[in-house]
Amino acid sequence: MTETTRLEAFSDGVLAVAITLLVLDLHDPGVHLPHGLARALLDQWPAYATYAVSFLTIGVIWVNHHDVFDRIAAVDRRLKFINLLLLMVVVVIPFSTALLSHHFRDGSNGHAAAVFYGLVAMAMGLAFTSMWVYLGRHPELLADGHDAAYARGRSVRTAVFGPAVYAVATVIGLVSAAASLILYAAVPMYFAFARSADAGPTNR
Amino acid sequence: MTETTRLEAFSDGVLAVAITLLVLDLHDPGVHLPHGLARALLDQWPAYATYAVSFLTIGVIWVNHHDVFDRIAAVDRRLKFINLLLLMVVVVIPFSTALLSHHFRDGSNGHAAAVFYGLVAMAMGLAFTSMWVYLGRHPELLADGHDAAYARGRSVRTAVFGPAVYAVATVIGLVSAAASLILYAAVPMYFAFARSADAGPTNR
Amino acid sequence: MTETTRLEAFSDGVLAVAITLLVLDLHDPGVHLPHGLARALLDQWPAYATYAVSFLTIGVIWVNHHDVFDRIAAVDRRLKFINLLLLMVVVVIPFSTALLSHHFRDGSNGHAAAVFYGLVAMAMGLAFTSMWVYLGRHPELLADGHDAAYARGRSVRTAVFGPAVYAVATVIGLVSAAASLILYAAVPMYFAFARSADAGPTNR
Amino acid sequence: MTETTRLEAFSDGVLAVAITLLVLDLHDPGVHLPHGLARALLDQWPAYATYAVSFLTIGVIWVNHHDVFDRIAAVDRRLKFINLLLLMVVVVIPFSTALLSHHFRDGSNGHAAAVFYGLVAMAMGLAFTSMWVYLGRHPELLADGHDAAYARGRSVRTAVFGPAVYAVATVIGLVSAAASLILYAAVPMYFAFARSADAGPTNR
Repeated sequence: MTETTRLEAFSDGVLAVAITLLVLDLHDPGVHLPHGLARALLDQWPAYATYAVSFLTIGVIWVNHHDVFDRIAAVDRRLKFINLLLLMVVVVIPFSTALLSHHFRDGSNGHAAAVFYGLVAMAMGLAFTSMWVYLGRHPELLADGHDAAYARGRSVRTAVFGPAVYAVATVIGLVSAAASLILYAAVPMYFAFARSADAGPTNR
Repeated sequence: MTETTRLEAFSDGVLAVAITLLVLDLHDPGVHLPHGLARALLDQWPAYATYAVSFLTIGVIWVNHHDVFDRIAAVDRRLKFINLLLLMVVVVIPFSTALLSHHFRDGSNGHAAAVFYGLVAMAMGLAFTSMWVYLGRHPELLADGHDAAYARGRSVRTAVFGPAVYAVATVIGLVSAAASLILYAAVPMYFAFARSADAGPTNR
Repeated sequence: MTETTRLEAFSDGVLAVAITLLVLDLHDPGVHLPHGLARALLDQWPAYATYAVSFLTIGVIWVNHHDVFDRIAAVDRRLKFINLLLLMVVVVIPFSTALLSHHFRDGSNGHAAAVFYGLVAMAMGLAFTSMWVYLGRHPELLADGHDAAYARGRSVRTAVFGPAVYAVATVIGLVSAAASLILYAAVPMYFAFARSADAGPTNR
Repeated sequence: MTETTRLEAFSDGVLAVAITLLVLDLHDPGVHLPHGLARALLDQWPAYATYAVSFLTIGVIWVNHHDVFDRIAAVDRRLKFINLLLLMVVVVIPFSTALLSHHFRDGSNGHAAAVFYGLVAMAMGLAFTSMWVYLGRHPELLADGHDAAYARGRSVRTAVFGPAVYAVATVIGLVSAAASLILYAAVPMYFAFARSADAGPTNR
């Protein structure tokens, strides 16, 4: 295996574990249930909503991660480190999801949880942006057909669609956890639907 | 790696983690055991039964997932999204298993847990069915030797053997958790035994 | 990838997750520690001993699993099912380890935990044995150079070194958890040291 | 796949799961928060610091593990066993991280946790050193272009930059958890930054 393939395989492994650990944020409501289990399960709908949003978010991170590495021919030690920082942030998502899930309807604590969720998502977007900025300065790492200008273009677009949108959602979280959650959900939906119109079948 | 191989490897990773997380649904009965540990371990037999059923269920999902992707030559963004929805549902199985395991003998709460388990299994079957429906509309993604008619046939059979059987088991769960669990167990056993009679050795 | 490679990759994934989940059996002693954290950490030495024994055991299962599949050229649906049963038992090991770790010094409960640990290990050995018995009856699945007689010989040796030794250790567990743990530890040590004398470097 | 590739793939899987399980050391502060969730989240900064240090540490272990196996052409049973011992120690890191995170500001218990963290890190470094010592005695396992003298040189350098530095940090942990944590953080930062100056892009 090449260094690039290995880095991708390790990153895929981490993403697969992180996305699956999200299920640990779903809790058995327990045995003392005055209104019964069915009602208790319905009552914890924020846990399902945050689970779905985070699952789709990490899913889209996986898609985007491959999209970056499809355009890379070689990796150096610093790019490995930036990739490690990206993974370090993504692995926090099951924790920020648990916080948002538990405190969602808890007034100002819900806002705090929504802001924390947004800060983690912003850090994730910044790590992706850093990767493109670094590639713009080290175009020798890019695959054939891609140059520094391409990487710089990608770094701008990544900054706008990632950290910038998440920054807005984070600020909205200061006043409404629900409104920010809708915006957090919108990002992966945009990637899944809006961008699929122009994307034909690929088997690169 | 091709996009299809990557999607399979990521899905395999998620399925391997999800099937292994099922062990977290088995709990130490604790230290205050009036009748001793041996008796306490025997008493939690529903946990072993649900563990085994869910393990076999995810195992069969893994077999079926490969069966689908063996017939796919290329993936597009929407198929990736349907696959992500399938995984999102499968990853919930350790949670629905924990619920059924804990509440199995708890009267109406046991019924609620059995229904929840069935709804998750139904959603999983529907995700598989959606995949075949989508492939029926996009036969250009299919491997050589498979056409839209084949995919439509598979979507009907998948709907009958998956969501339809699980719908029946879910309704039965309303009156008996035990009866529905037997039906949940029957699905993977059918795939393992009934269908193995006609399946010779394969090394595609 | 061939069906055989896929089955191995999935099994490797499950084994890698199961071996790593063993760390969840190590617990922070908490904050109310009359004799301090250092003493509390030393006091839970059975947790480290069972962790090490189970880690080596799953490690040897991984080595043996590859050893079996190196001799297989094709898989059929029933062999997949036997493999799934093997994994189902191995994934229970972090649970039987937790039980043994928590109840080790708890008199008759410690014996019960040691017996449970042994029964799981026996079931694992029986699954390996079943695999060889099945291959003895379906030699068409074996790789070139291996025949039914070879598989039958392996099934006998596997039964003796696996389930038989674990059966003895299980019976010993009825009277002493410590003595059975030493025997559980001896199995992977035998595979690692005694059998390494005659094994030259391999890169098949 | 060759034996070497398989061992690497399994090790990568274990490392990917272990690095992701670190998120389980981050806990929801709960619902009874006199000063609110935001303050409670800020108060548990040692958890974030230890998470980051351990994440980078396991990340560097992954890089170094590949570096070793890039220089190996074949594996024998004993090298597999040494590798298993290395993984056994690395998988403990989420536990030693949890201890350090929970007891960091708890006086002498914090020192005990820092020492425990250091002992685990030292054992990890010793496992890497053992691997090179063993390769120095079995140069037939090394890839072309590497001989016994090379392996002996690596074993000395590994001992100095790994166990020796961690031994110093462990002793410092006896008097200050914070000072030892800074040193634990310095090791992966050194590998990421100091050593990246001379490392060009690689795609071996």
